[in-house]
Amino acid sequence: MIRVSVVGAQGRMGASVVEAVEAADDMELSAKVGEQDDIASITPENTDVAVEFTVPSASLNNVLALVAQGVDVVVGTTGWTDAKLAQVTQALDNGPRAGQAVFIAPNFAISAVLADYFAAKAAPYFTSAEVIELHHPDKVDAPSGTAIHTAQAIAAARAAAGGEPMPDGTQGEAASRGQVIDGVHVHAVRLQGLNAHEEVLLGNTGEQLVIRADSFERSSFMPGVLLAVRTLAGGGHAGLTVGLDAFLDL
Amino acid sequence: MIRVSVVGAQGRMGASVVEAVEAADDMELSAKVGEQDDIASITPENTDVAVEFTVPSASLNNVLALVAQGVDVVVGTTGWTDAKLAQVTQALDNGPRAGQAVFIAPNFAISAVLADYFAAKAAPYFTSAEVIELHHPDKVDAPSGTAIHTAQAIAAARAAAGGEPMPDGTQGEAASRGQVIDGVHVHAVRLQGLNAHEEVLLGNTGEQLVIRADSFERSSFMPGVLLAVRTLAGGGHAGLTVGLDAFLDL
Amino acid sequence: MIRVSVVGAQGRMGASVVEAVEAADDMELSAKVGEQDDIASITPENTDVAVEFTVPSASLNNVLALVAQGVDVVVGTTGWTDAKLAQVTQALDNGPRAGQAVFIAPNFAISAVLADYFAAKAAPYFTSAEVIELHHPDKVDAPSGTAIHTAQAIAAARAAAGGEPMPDGTQGEAASRGQVIDGVHVHAVRLQGLNAHEEVLLGNTGEQLVIRADSFERSSFMPGVLLAVRTLAGGGHAGLTVGLDAFLDL
Amino acid sequence: MIRVSVVGAQGRMGASVVEAVEAADDMELSAKVGEQDDIASITPENTDVAVEFTVPSASLNNVLALVAQGVDVVVGTTGWTDAKLAQVTQALDNGPRAGQAVFIAPNFAISAVLADYFAAKAAPYFTSAEVIELHHPDKVDAPSGTAIHTAQAIAAARAAAGGEPMPDGTQGEAASRGQVIDGVHVHAVRLQGLNAHEEVLLGNTGEQLVIRADSFERSSFMPGVLLAVRTLAGGGHAGLTVGLDAFLDL
Repeated sequence: MIRVSVVGAQGRMGASVVEAVEAADDMELSAKVGEQDDIASITPENTDVAVEFTVPSASLNNVLALVAQGVDVVVGTTGWTDAKLAQVTQALDNGPRAGQAVFIAPNFAISAVLADYFAAKAAPYFTSAEVIELHHPDKVDAPSGTAIHTAQAIAAARAAAGGEPMPDGTQGEAASRGQVIDGVHVHAVRLQGLNAHEEVLLGNTGEQLVIRADSFERSSFMPGVLLAVRTLAGGGHAGLTVGLDAFLDL
Repeated sequence: MIRVSVVGAQGRMGASVVEAVEAADDMELSAKVGEQDDIASITPENTDVAVEFTVPSASLNNVLALVAQGVDVVVGTTGWTDAKLAQVTQALDNGPRAGQAVFIAPNFAISAVLADYFAAKAAPYFTSAEVIELHHPDKVDAPSGTAIHTAQAIAAARAAAGGEPMPDGTQGEAASRGQVIDGVHVHAVRLQGLNAHEEVLLGNTGEQLVIRADSFERSSFMPGVLLAVRTLAGGGHAGLTVGLDAFLDL
Repeated sequence: MIRVSVVGAQGRMGASVVEAVEAADDMELSAKVGEQDDIASITPENTDVAVEFTVPSASLNNVLALVAQGVDVVVGTTGWTDAKLAQVTQALDNGPRAGQAVFIAPNFAISAVLADYFAAKAAPYFTSAEVIELHHPDKVDAPSGTAIHTAQAIAAARAAAGGEPMPDGTQGEAASRGQVIDGVHVHAVRLQGLNAHEEVLLGNTGEQLVIRADSFERSSFMPGVLLAVRTLAGGGHAGLTVGLDAFLDL
Repeated sequence: MIRVSVVGAQGRMGASVVEAVEAADDMELSAKVGEQDDIASITPENTDVAVEFTVPSASLNNVLALVAQGVDVVVGTTGWTDAKLAQVTQALDNGPRAGQAVFIAPNFAISAVLADYFAAKAAPYFTSAEVIELHHPDKVDAPSGTAIHTAQAIAAARAAAGGEPMPDGTQGEAASRGQVIDGVHVHAVRLQGLNAHEEVLLGNTGEQLVIRADSFERSSFMPGVLLAVRTLAGGGHAGLTVGLDAFLDL
C-alpha cells in the first residue's frame, strides 16, 4: 500500500484527493494537513508520497519543507516560476534521502495533457492550426493557461519543422479573430454549464484534425493525481519533473 | 416544368445554378445570360423564374429590369441595403403583371438558415450564448455576415424575452474573447481545408445546446435555390420576400 | 411567491428540486413529502404547485391523490402509458377545482427538448438524418427513450412532407449501422465520464446540420422543472399537458 | 527536382496525383501511365519515384514490374494481403539496385493516420473508448477499413497495458450499440453531404478526449502522397514500409 498524505486537505481539490486516495485499492491515507496543522508531521516514517494542493503563496514553502524532511511530493498548486522551480531543484540536491522526487503538474487532466501533446506532434503536418478553449463564466483569466501552453507548443513544433506562417486573408480590424500567441490564434468561450474544455483544429487542403479535451468536473483530475503518486512511489524519477506527459508512455 | 433563366451564368455560383436546374426533374433551363447578353431577352413568354447571381454593383439594375418585364426573380447576390430593397418594392408595385414576386436570400444553405433560426428560438431559454464561425483562410471579412446576423438575432430574442446580460467573469483585456455584437461574443476561425461553418453554443447550469451548420462546398446552396424557385413558381408570394426561412415551414 | 411542495423529496431528483425551489427568488418550499409521509397534507391551502418525482409504480396514485385534493402537479416520474394518462385526464375532469392542471414531461432538460423539436422541424429539408445518443456506462437501456422519440419524430416529419427513404448503399450485414427506428438509424455510445447527450446529424449534398444536446449533470433538469412550475402557477393550462415543448414559445 | 511517374493516371486518384505533382515546387511529372501503356517505360533513367493508384487486381503486378526495373514505388491501391506483401519483399531483395524501396499506405490522409495513431497512444489511459465513422451514403462497406484498424489498435494498446474490459451496463439486445471489434464498439453513420470522417471518443471519470479526422474531399490524400514521395526520394527507407505513420516524426 502506498501511504499518502494530503497537504491542503480542506480545500476543494485537496478534499477530492482525500476521497480519491481513500477509494484507491493500492493506497492508504496517512495524514490530512490543513492550514492549522504542522506540515512537519509528515515524514518518511508515515508517508510515501505527499500531495500538495494549496495556494501559490504557500506552495513553495510547503514543498521545501517536505523535501527537507525527505518526503516525495506531487504538487497540483499553480503559480510556479523558473525561480521557484530552481529553489525546489536545489532543495532536492540537498535533501536528506537519495533519489528524492518532486513532481509538479500545471494540469492533471489526462485528456488535457494528451490533447496538448498530440496537438504539438501533429502541428508540423498541417497548414493551419487554431485553439478554442471553453470554460464556465466564473473564470477570471482568458485565455486559459493551458490554451496558452498549447498555442506555444504548436508554434514551437512548427518552427522546429521549418513551417511557414499560416494563411489568413482577413483584412482590417477583426476582434473576432481572437488573441494571437506566437502566431497561433486562440479563442476563449465562456458559457454557463461548461467546466473546462479545449479544442485544437488543424487543417490541410481537404482535411481537418480535431483534438478535444473535456474536463466535466473536478474529479477529472484525480486519475492524473493517482498516476503521479504511483509513479513517484515506484521510484526511478529522482529530481524535479514538470508536466504529466513525462509520466505517460508517449 | 418550371422554365428557369440564369442571370450571371458564367460566374461560379451561376454556373452551379445552371447545373442544378439541368439536373432537376421538374425544371428546364430557358436561358443563360452573361455580361455580354441582353437581359431583355428574358420574358414571361420563355421564363417562369429568373435566378440572379451576379455582383452587388449590377444586381439592383438586373432585378429592376426583370421586374419591369414581368419576370419573377430569385436573387442570390449580396449587398442589399434598405434603400435598394425599397426600389425593388416600388418596382413590384408598378410591375406589368399582378402577383409578381422577388425573393432575396443572404444565404441559400438550408443548414445555415435553420441554424440561425433555431439559435434565435432557443436563445431566451439559456443563460449564455456564443457564436463561432469557421471559414477557409481566403475569406477577407471576419466575422462572417451570417455570424453577425445570428448574434443580432440571438440578442434580439433575448431582449424581447426580458433576459439578463450573460455572465462573464473575465478580468482585464482579453482579445481571446472575440468580438462582441449586441452583447453576444463572436469568434472567427480561419483554417485551411474548411469552407463555411457556424456553431452556436447555448448554455444553462448543467446543460448545453449546440447548433452547427456545415457548408462543405458551393453545391450546398443549390437545394435552397431550387426550393426558392419552386416556391415562387407555385405562386402566392407576391411582393418582396427576404430570407429563406420565409419559405420553410417553421 | 409560488408555494411548492415536493413529493419524493428524499430521492435524488426530488432533493435537487428542493434545492432548486429554495434557490428560486419567486418560490418558497411548502412541504417535503417522502414515502413515510401522508400526501394528503398537500392541499391548495398550503401549495400552489406540487412537483412529483418518485417511481413509476407510485406516481399514478400520487398524481390522482393530488388532483382529488385540487392541487396542480408537475410530474417528472417516467413510465406513463396511454391508459395511465387517461386516468389522469378523467381525474382532472372530476377535480374539485375549476381549471386544474397536470403537467408530465419525459425529459426536463431544455436543451434535449429543443434538440428533439428542432430535429423534427429540420428533417423534411434534408436527404439524410441519423441520431447518436451518448450516455454513462451504467445505463441499462439502449437506445435512450429520448433518442427513440427523436427518431420517431424525424420519421413522422419526413413522412408528412412526403419525403423519400434515405440513401444507404451499405451491402451485407452491418451491425455498425445501429438500430433502425422508423427508418432512422440510431447509435448508442456508452462512455465513462459522460452523462446524457444526444446528437442529430442531418445531411444534404454539400451541407450538414448538427443539433446536439448535452446534459452534464442532474442539475440540468431544474430550469425545466422551474419553468413548468411557473407556467402552471400562471394559470391558463387546465387539463393534462405532456412534454416541455408545450410550454416553450416555439 | 524529384521526377515522378504516375501509374493509373486516368483514374480519379491518379489524376489527382498528377495535378498535385505538377503543382509541387520540388517535383516534375515524368510519365503518366494508363491501362494501355507499357509500364516498362518507367525506369530509373526517367523516374525517381513512381506512384501507383490502380485496382487491387492489377497493383501487385505493377509493383513487381517497377521493382524489377529498379524504380522506387509509392502505392495507394488497397487490397494487400500478407502473401502479396511477401512477394513485394522478395522482389525487393532481388532488385537490380541497392536500397530499393516500396511504400504502401492503406490511407494517405494525414489527419486519419494521426487520429488512428493518437487513439492507440491514448487508449491505455482511459476507462472507455468507442469509434464512430461517418461516410457518404454510397459507401458499400460498414464499418470502414480505417475504423476497423482503429478499433483493433485501441484494443491492442489496452491489452498491452493490462487494461480491464470497458464498463457497459446495457441489458438485453441492443442493435444501437454497434459492432464490437476486439471489444471496442464501432458505429457507422451514412449521411448525404459527408465524405470520410472518423471520431474516437475516450472517457474517464469526469473527462473525455475526442480525436476526429475529417477528409472533406479526394484532395485530402495528396499531402500524404507527396510526403511519401519526398521521403522515398530522400533515401534511407530501403525495403517495404507499410503505413504513413512510419514516415511521420511521432
